[in-house]
Amino acid sequence: MKNILIIGCGLLGSSLLRKIKKKRLANKIFIFEKSKKNLSKIKKLKLPGIIVKKPEDVISQSNMIIFCTPMSEYKKLILKLNKHFTSNHIITDIGSSKSNSLKIIKKNLKKNISWTSSHPIAGSEVSGPEHGKRDLFEGKWCVLIKDKKTNLKHFKLVDSFWKKMGSKTVSMSSEKHDKIFSITSHLPHLIAYNLVKTAQIFEKRQKHNLLKFSAGGLRDFSRIAASNEVMWRDIFFDNKVNVSQAINLFIKSLNEFKKDINSKKNKSILKKLTQTKKVRSQIIKLKQDINKPNFGRD
Amino acid sequence: MKNILIIGCGLLGSSLLRKIKKKRLANKIFIFEKSKKNLSKIKKLKLPGIIVKKPEDVISQSNMIIFCTPMSEYKKLILKLNKHFTSNHIITDIGSSKSNSLKIIKKNLKKNISWTSSHPIAGSEVSGPEHGKRDLFEGKWCVLIKDKKTNLKHFKLVDSFWKKMGSKTVSMSSEKHDKIFSITSHLPHLIAYNLVKTAQIFEKRQKHNLLKFSAGGLRDFSRIAASNEVMWRDIFFDNKVNVSQAINLFIKSLNEFKKDINSKKNKSILKKLTQTKKVRSQIIKLKQDINKPNFGRD
Repeated sequence: MKNILIIGCGLLGSSLLRKIKKKRLANKIFIFEKSKKNLSKIKKLKLPGIIVKKPEDVISQSNMIIFCTPMSEYKKLILKLNKHFTSNHIITDIGSSKSNSLKIIKKNLKKNISWTSSHPIAGSEVSGPEHGKRDLFEGKWCVLIKDKKTNLKHFKLVDSFWKKMGSKTVSMSSEKHDKIFSITSHLPHLIAYNLVKTAQIFEKRQKHNLLKFSAGGLRDFSRIAASNEVMWRDIFFDNKVNVSQAINLFIKSLNEFKKDINSKKNKSILKKLTQTKKVRSQIIKLKQDINKPNFGRD
Repeated sequence: MKNILIIGCGLLGSSLLRKIKKKRLANKIFIFEKSKKNLSKIKKLKLPGIIVKKPEDVISQSNMIIFCTPMSEYKKLILKLNKHFTSNHIITDIGSSKSNSLKIIKKNLKKNISWTSSHPIAGSEVSGPEHGKRDLFEGKWCVLIKDKKTNLKHFKLVDSFWKKMGSKTVSMSSEKHDKIFSITSHLPHLIAYNLVKTAQIFEKRQKHNLLKFSAGGLRDFSRIAASNEVMWRDIFFDNKVNVSQAINLFIKSLNEFKKDINSKKNKSILKKLTQTKKVRSQIIKLKQDINKPNFGRD
């Protein structure tokens, strides 16, 4: 039995906490959370674990350290904790963007310390410890970053940890990770924010009550656009090169579509609208979504 | 007790059929459906109503006629049925775009015949009579188009009909309707199609398996992008002026966002990501969506 330190106890940190407790994976679970609001929620919810005021006080007692803060917090925390880290510490994080954050980690982390980066695909539009769930990771993918310098012993332990959390694991380079998620996650989020913003601008200009009629499609985007702003700022900044390329590719596609509509290109539009249909059934076959019309909401 | 003729018996037509039967609103319900596939489904499902081979044969017996076909079918049908229409017929349709379709209707419809256009906000990504539901319209908005020439007697009857279907009704001009829905419905659908297409192009180019990781956001868009292609082609063509303006407004917003990311404009990005958050809670307050994280899927 080992001790685990969770740094940052929001949606993901508190979900890990709940699952680690349930599976009895740790002797002691230490929690460091800097937000007073979250701390009082953790206490009120009577979540398991020992709240610590300074993470450095328990690093020597911890075998595994999991960073669950926004990525912009990493540098400051690493600089503070560096002298307490040893090469035996299993360190991981759950950040949604990898190349740039790993550069910052490698640049600031003390020599001979290993950091095995991971990314569980298990977000939500809600944040905070009150929304955490023991089974948040159940059946979901967790991507582990692997490169030439990866400490394979630590990698295997982190891989095994995520499997115990219920995840299916897959490994890839940070570059590949960031390319894939720029399209499957970062671009959709960015689009959702911008669509909702477009609706807000339009509503102001036209003085029409739009949201009343949002069930036509807008409501779906509003869910994603309600996600945590600090976390998403960090992702967009961290993965800005891939995200910019994704935006360009998307705008190109939009402009072509607009052209087709305006010149009423029947065949071209029908082809576009039909081809994209297949993706839905593939996604359902891959068990990435439920097979119910309207997500079973109606 | 009166007779109702439903022209086009897919998702919406068959939902009306089921509800009309349940509420015993008609003596006889006639169904005209040109697709053989849909016809065999209707028979297999043992849906209520009398299937007719030619709608013109039962127009004289029908008091109300509801067009539930794609909008591109209207003209041909009107030209065929014109000589059978009388000024007593209550005629409505459920098309999702109004200004242009009403121009076509008015241009082709025989003199002194009234047409009260309506738009129930109750779509889905699935189509066909097998997906119809008796309660599809329950608690949903139905927009009725009203202008100077509207026959008020017919308007009141159509309004009352939709209320019996379970809808809340609201009336507006076709211009206002098309502006509002270009933003709340047409733009989101168009974006969803183009995002999924962008993912397909990217997947081909990079040879990465994207869909496996679509739970990061892409899966939501894939639902909308699976909607009926003929219906949506008609909507995009019909409302192309407003839709083009909406695309331009949206691309402008995307380009500003990209600029902010690339120059790491912290305040500006945080402001954008925070402002859009409010919309979600407004939408939930307006009962346009369920109040469950991840639409309650996980």
